[in-house]
Amino acid sequence: MNVGIVGLGLIGGSFVKAYKKANNTVYVYNRSQDIVDFAIMNGDVDYKLDKTNMNECDLIIISLYPNSTVEFLNNFSQYFNKNSIVIDACGIKKSVCKCGFKNADKFGYTFVGAHPMAGTHNSGYKYSRADMFKNAPMVLVPPTFDDINLLDKVEKMLAPCGFGSFSVTTAKNHDEMIAFTSQMPHIISNAFIKSPTAATHKGFSAGSYKDLTRVAWLNPVMWSDLFFENKDCLINELDIYINHLKEYKTALENGDEEYMIKLLEEGKEAKEKVDGR
Amino acid sequence: MNVGIVGLGLIGGSFVKAYKKANNTVYVYNRSQDIVDFAIMNGDVDYKLDKTNMNECDLIIISLYPNSTVEFLNNFSQYFNKNSIVIDACGIKKSVCKCGFKNADKFGYTFVGAHPMAGTHNSGYKYSRADMFKNAPMVLVPPTFDDINLLDKVEKMLAPCGFGSFSVTTAKNHDEMIAFTSQMPHIISNAFIKSPTAATHKGFSAGSYKDLTRVAWLNPVMWSDLFFENKDCLINELDIYINHLKEYKTALENGDEEYMIKLLEEGKEAKEKVDGR
Repeated sequence: MNVGIVGLGLIGGSFVKAYKKANNTVYVYNRSQDIVDFAIMNGDVDYKLDKTNMNECDLIIISLYPNSTVEFLNNFSQYFNKNSIVIDACGIKKSVCKCGFKNADKFGYTFVGAHPMAGTHNSGYKYSRADMFKNAPMVLVPPTFDDINLLDKVEKMLAPCGFGSFSVTTAKNHDEMIAFTSQMPHIISNAFIKSPTAATHKGFSAGSYKDLTRVAWLNPVMWSDLFFENKDCLINELDIYINHLKEYKTALENGDEEYMIKLLEEGKEAKEKVDGR
Repeated sequence: MNVGIVGLGLIGGSFVKAYKKANNTVYVYNRSQDIVDFAIMNGDVDYKLDKTNMNECDLIIISLYPNSTVEFLNNFSQYFNKNSIVIDACGIKKSVCKCGFKNADKFGYTFVGAHPMAGTHNSGYKYSRADMFKNAPMVLVPPTFDDINLLDKVEKMLAPCGFGSFSVTTAKNHDEMIAFTSQMPHIISNAFIKSPTAATHKGFSAGSYKDLTRVAWLNPVMWSDLFFENKDCLINELDIYINHLKEYKTALENGDEEYMIKLLEEGKEAKEKVDGR
């Protein structure tokens, strides 16, 4: 298989290494040339990807930030092969899929939105690994929800990455979910660590503290970009969350133990419903 | 060593099993007798602890909720041996240490506040284990801050539990820290899971979601008790936290990407200062 990968960051680099390890021919496009030259010399990549050879790729994976993914799709869709599958790797799907589906219709190729749920808090090619996606969940947004043949083909093409599961959903549903399951935890963690008490906690770190602050160290530009692409969903989740927090504060201020126990019971039950005990 | 353990819950039971495993003589006091009878039949415990044999104990560990610990200290301090060390195992220290130090002065024994930072989200003797404290941090609050001989003696007495580290602090400092490192994470987790989006997230769970919601399933009565014992510190942390969260919401509402990136940078830097990258 000829695989074109756009963007040599943590995720793009990991796709490169996974496909190369499985003996595919790997083409790469990246704004900065130094890292492409390095990856070729290192044997990770076979060719630079450009307008002239884009039509040789069976699969193209665009691993850029949302804004840059849209820009790339608008500028290069005309060079893709009509038989190729093009996927992205963004953490939000509405704006990217809208652009991908539109260009795919216009130029005759097939676009499938994709969100590989993997990564580390470090970014860049340096930290990429062939096994980054091993057992990770992969969320797919196909142009037609029940196109089983297409999904089957995409899952086969992605097999060298070793994903643990594939979920199929709509862009809207994906973005609502991701505001809650991924974007909110990053804001929660990043905001929590700002307490002045944090600086003096050595020797007192419970496991719950460690879990909660793990993702506070993040890539500010990337996450800001993702947040604004999903602004409405995220504001909604923040509102719900802040209102719930205020209830615990009210219970404390009023010395109302019965209310506090009720609030904690409700959270316990909600957790039990979602994930079991 | 003769060790008296008061309360046969998760923590008390784990002390029982750790000391028994190290061939100490274990005395136990518990409100409900069934579980004491079971523990004796099971070979975990040697004797029931009561007024008549309390003075035989070299070490007494009170593993009850804060209110009940204070009550026990007030009712039974007169029966302790003057050479004995008495510790508690509560998650808050100000009220418990105040009561412990006062009674120790009055009746001539030695009280040391203690908070073993271990546990599971399940409670009860059933889930207790001899290795519950293995490598866990133990926080001690001695009556005199720099009483090295006493701390040395206590650490030796606690050796069978296998704690990974001992920190020494004041009750006030402990409670300020614990509001941030342990109580806040439980409220944050318990409040977060209440979003209506939670119920429909299957297949989308990022690692950050899993970390954040781990402690949402908790013991409501126990945590409510701990929260109210540390009410002022906790209200202060909740205020700081809600105000920080509102800043991210403002950045989103105003479409202010520069402000959002600044907020995320500040959180990233705070995390780096506390825990490194």
